[in-house]
Amino acid sequence: MRLRDIGEFGLIARIERAARRAGSPTWVRIGIGDDAAVVRPRRGEDVVLSTDALVEDVHFRRSNESARSIGRRALVANLSDLAAMGARPLGFTCALAAPPELAVSTLDGIVAGLLIEAGKHRCPLLGGNVSAARELSLTLAVLGGVGRGRALTRSGARAGDDLFVTGVLGAAALARARAERSGRPMRHVPQPRLAAGRALTRIRAVRACIDLSDGLLADAAHLLGPAGLAADIDPDAVPRPARFSAACARVGLDPVRTLMTGGEDYELLFVVRGARPTAAELARRLRVPVSRVGRVVSAGSLAEPADAGGWRHF
Amino acid sequence: MRLRDIGEFGLIARIERAARRAGSPTWVRIGIGDDAAVVRPRRGEDVVLSTDALVEDVHFRRSNESARSIGRRALVANLSDLAAMGARPLGFTCALAAPPELAVSTLDGIVAGLLIEAGKHRCPLLGGNVSAARELSLTLAVLGGVGRGRALTRSGARAGDDLFVTGVLGAAALARARAERSGRPMRHVPQPRLAAGRALTRIRAVRACIDLSDGLLADAAHLLGPAGLAADIDPDAVPRPARFSAACARVGLDPVRTLMTGGEDYELLFVVRGARPTAAELARRLRVPVSRVGRVVSAGSLAEPADAGGWRHF
Repeated sequence: MRLRDIGEFGLIARIERAARRAGSPTWVRIGIGDDAAVVRPRRGEDVVLSTDALVEDVHFRRSNESARSIGRRALVANLSDLAAMGARPLGFTCALAAPPELAVSTLDGIVAGLLIEAGKHRCPLLGGNVSAARELSLTLAVLGGVGRGRALTRSGARAGDDLFVTGVLGAAALARARAERSGRPMRHVPQPRLAAGRALTRIRAVRACIDLSDGLLADAAHLLGPAGLAADIDPDAVPRPARFSAACARVGLDPVRTLMTGGEDYELLFVVRGARPTAAELARRLRVPVSRVGRVVSAGSLAEPADAGGWRHF
Repeated sequence: MRLRDIGEFGLIARIERAARRAGSPTWVRIGIGDDAAVVRPRRGEDVVLSTDALVEDVHFRRSNESARSIGRRALVANLSDLAAMGARPLGFTCALAAPPELAVSTLDGIVAGLLIEAGKHRCPLLGGNVSAARELSLTLAVLGGVGRGRALTRSGARAGDDLFVTGVLGAAALARARAERSGRPMRHVPQPRLAAGRALTRIRAVRACIDLSDGLLADAAHLLGPAGLAADIDPDAVPRPARFSAACARVGLDPVRTLMTGGEDYELLFVVRGARPTAAELARRLRVPVSRVGRVVSAGSLAEPADAGGWRHF
């Protein structure tokens, strides 16, 4: 069955049914199916909004990834932006654009993937849009809530501050390389650091935060560059999965380059006022592994400019 | 200059500069340029979220519409969904997808168009996303605020209620037909009925509301169909621009069909408890023209089913 067989309203009805089966938290006052959704934040909460898109053959290939995984990754990428602000999810919208000849089962898989992560992170599908297009794409907008004035931002770092990351890096790049080499579909779905992000809003020494979507060096440049700052990162201090170098060697990846530039790990990179909490103290507060990877310096003080090896679209 | 010459981050920097020049209202706590935007609703306000997309050659053609007009219409379509809920705008995000060979001036024009309507309706650009794609598209998500529990919805109509519309219908379809016939660019940009929508939330006899994007018959079916209801509309009562029939004749349009099925007028269609306020009273409260176009009936009671002649995507 193709999309053209069920039509725009047929697809919308399918998505609505799936979303209703998933249920919705009490803060959703009007969910999917009206002109817009209505959500009730907690009293005095600020609201947080972000958008991100996945486009076929740019952000995913259907030949090496299941539809469900594409859907899951799409929502994770958006939830990670909420995590970086220290916000809790309130819900999301999804604009789907697809060619009329696309199999309905592919769209069902994408929606199922979205709803898996939606359920896991209590971030209900609130509405969406469906349009014909020449290529498949998903554009999500995610809504969150955060205590009044408590949102983490990218600004606030100063020279001398310490740089920390959650979890381990390089896992997503390694999984992509393995899938490409083996011809088997990619199964790695990173998880947004929502609880860790919320915990960071309660630690006063934390000055700035960003999620690692483009890669450590690129995102450090996004975090620090606008203020004339740079990251002095010790590659040996960057946390990595067990037996990472050997795994990289097997698929022809350079391990240090992969740690520094591999994207889509969705860990948090954050800045802490110099000599305040240690990595161990932060790990206890955040309930996730935390590593100190370097420090903030003024941009001119690095011997050579860091290679911002992140992903470029054009 | 092409998009590939300035790259993803070059385009983002251009959009950020334009958005900053436009300024932002006090409720925006963190605007464009962070992982997400942070907005402070009024105390006790519910928040409203909606998304809508314009795809090249589906919703617009660059051959008969300026980039600026495309940007303006994109935001108007989204704002109209807020109007239909009775919400005030808080801001929006824009995900742009474009081929690398697209002229930067086209993107500048689209952004300028978005910002014209953003300024007019106090709905600042809060953030966005930029991606390579095979075709040009814009996907907006718009955030609004509405008094706690006061949002208008599509549900609530009952048989015997009266159906009203704001303004006049058919103007957008007529403008499209004129542009196609003359080969001159389309200049008509409808306006979202934001103030009228807010006024409707303060009238207790109003039971349901929808904005007219797909056409009167199609949107009446969206509004009433799910409850087993239908619209009994008197075509002669549908408000139209001055000298509409003659203008339709000149471009080969059937005037009644155009009134009943022409989309994108973005007027409001709303349901009022039978025999309560008259059109004149409603017009005074809403400060816009209001016409009674028919009444709500049970779906089985119409002699023949209405032709749901709206736009279908697949």
